[in-house]
Amino acid sequence: MTDPLSPGSTIGILGGGQLGRMLSVAAARLGMKTCVFEPGGDCPAAHVANYHLRADYTDEAALRRFADSVDVITYEFENIPTSALDLLEPLKPIRPGREALRVSQDRLTEKDFLTGLGLQTAPYADILTAESLTQAIEEIGTPAILKTRRFGYDGKGQARIMSPDEASAALATLEGAPAILEGFVEFTSEISIIAARGLDGSVACYDPGENVHREGILRTTTVPATLPAPARTDAVLLAAKILNALDYVGVMGVELFVTPAGLVVNEIAPRVHNSGHWTQNGCVVDQFEQHIRAVAGWPLGDGSRHADVVMENLIGADVERVADLASETGVAVHLYGKAEIKAGRKMGHICRVAS
Amino acid sequence: MTDPLSPGSTIGILGGGQLGRMLSVAAARLGMKTCVFEPGGDCPAAHVANYHLRADYTDEAALRRFADSVDVITYEFENIPTSALDLLEPLKPIRPGREALRVSQDRLTEKDFLTGLGLQTAPYADILTAESLTQAIEEIGTPAILKTRRFGYDGKGQARIMSPDEASAALATLEGAPAILEGFVEFTSEISIIAARGLDGSVACYDPGENVHREGILRTTTVPATLPAPARTDAVLLAAKILNALDYVGVMGVELFVTPAGLVVNEIAPRVHNSGHWTQNGCVVDQFEQHIRAVAGWPLGDGSRHADVVMENLIGADVERVADLASETGVAVHLYGKAEIKAGRKMGHICRVAS
Repeated sequence: MTDPLSPGSTIGILGGGQLGRMLSVAAARLGMKTCVFEPGGDCPAAHVANYHLRADYTDEAALRRFADSVDVITYEFENIPTSALDLLEPLKPIRPGREALRVSQDRLTEKDFLTGLGLQTAPYADILTAESLTQAIEEIGTPAILKTRRFGYDGKGQARIMSPDEASAALATLEGAPAILEGFVEFTSEISIIAARGLDGSVACYDPGENVHREGILRTTTVPATLPAPARTDAVLLAAKILNALDYVGVMGVELFVTPAGLVVNEIAPRVHNSGHWTQNGCVVDQFEQHIRAVAGWPLGDGSRHADVVMENLIGADVERVADLASETGVAVHLYGKAEIKAGRKMGHICRVAS
Repeated sequence: MTDPLSPGSTIGILGGGQLGRMLSVAAARLGMKTCVFEPGGDCPAAHVANYHLRADYTDEAALRRFADSVDVITYEFENIPTSALDLLEPLKPIRPGREALRVSQDRLTEKDFLTGLGLQTAPYADILTAESLTQAIEEIGTPAILKTRRFGYDGKGQARIMSPDEASAALATLEGAPAILEGFVEFTSEISIIAARGLDGSVACYDPGENVHREGILRTTTVPATLPAPARTDAVLLAAKILNALDYVGVMGVELFVTPAGLVVNEIAPRVHNSGHWTQNGCVVDQFEQHIRAVAGWPLGDGSRHADVVMENLIGADVERVADLASETGVAVHLYGKAEIKAGRKMGHICRVAS
């Protein structure tokens, strides 16, 4: 299938969180329907999707029904079980494709892929045993971060090692999961670039945003980022290199460290990205619609930035401030419909738009 | 109920067309759920609503179930059967209130209301018989338009009378429906003002847009309108006067003729309005969210305009141009998910945003 999907087609979305919710709304804007595959019940995406197929990722009959009812399959998180993808792949196109998932599901594979493209990453080493950790610390030094190779997000599955004597305790917290040691990168700022690649191979990037994390969770993204013009160009070229190498179709988030020695790739996410939420109020076509356009084989849309925006995540009890925030000039509110407030849970975000 | 609705509350929407669709998306953005009451099946609003209660407006049990499942009731069209409203009114707040519906459901009542506020309208007369039509034509002159008092939209239920001898044929087309004769207004342009009034009585207006109709159907709305500054102020004051007089809560569309003798009110619509669709790409908070904010008792949002926009309706086969339109710079596409293309049917719209 290489023809663009017609209005009225159905986009299948694996995962029912807030990213699926905002993808669903974007698909509706283009006249398309959505079917969300998500084991959980009252999930954010189901509120706005045409269909919610509630089943586990191991339910083969449900996965087949899902494939039958959609025209193309995309996803809102990268840790989809391989068995589910193996079943779906021959039935309907999966966009972005398997290679992007294979690379980004494993931190070691991802780092090898990125360095193989000639891009800079943090120094890293594969950790198989306590001995290899000791050796890696000798080479990379401390502080360093020990991370599980798979299934980490928002700072989970990570342990800092400030000095070599903390190594064994850090390794113990990972409970035997395959791991990677990453050296610290001295950066002046963290930015991310949200890039899209269409089915025709065309690439479009949004303006880089500057990120502030706290406790491993993104707090704010500010556009424009404080960034010299050459770094801006480097970021775009680098993102295009990654997307082209993967024959990628869809939107990708690329997190970068800005350092005196140039841009260092922190990680890539083969999906719409929290640091791209500012596009909802800063561009004619936001990252969610851009992703839907790409996976549906439509032309990429106009992602040029028309305003300065600060995106601020509402995490846990932050959402209780929403009444006050809603009355501020230039503030756009985006809530995710999550029933229960939990510490560390992303409940929504706001965009402060400069007039 | 005067406290603002919390995220997680449910907005009941009477009517399942494209306005209900875009209201539903706006409610989701504020973390609210929606229940759409609509007799039709695969309707535009149901695609993005949490619940679709499919039942007729005469189904009393269904109306009661609807009221039970929502926190506030609003609507996307003004011709809701009175019996349904009578049943719902004691059960849950209806916003905008009954008075706005009573006035706007009947062209004669509406004209009497507007002139009673000291506002200018086209010359008009109540038409009860062929004799009263003859007399009205003598007073008002020709050309004039004979309109049904109720249930007209997009040019339906109207007959032009270019000369007195066309009177009886025109009257016959209305098949005995109560009617009103309206004189022609010599205008330099048609504009509309989209105004909102919160539960606290605060009023906010969007920039007036300039409308072009063809065959009784809105084709384009352009902001900014070509309009002298005093007329802009007049439009805002006039809209506020109407909203305050009705103790209105929600968004209203007010269509105006610009004439050398000042602004003449064409008609009012107690709901979000086609001529306000440009706000989706021209403002931080669009008319749909503004309406949801108002009916939910939230503070009104920032509706200041950040871009020049031309909104263009995609009517009937226009929608087949969507692939080309989607690839144009600065074009935002909004489709309504209607399965079948019909002549005169609003299938979607685009906003051309000036950079």
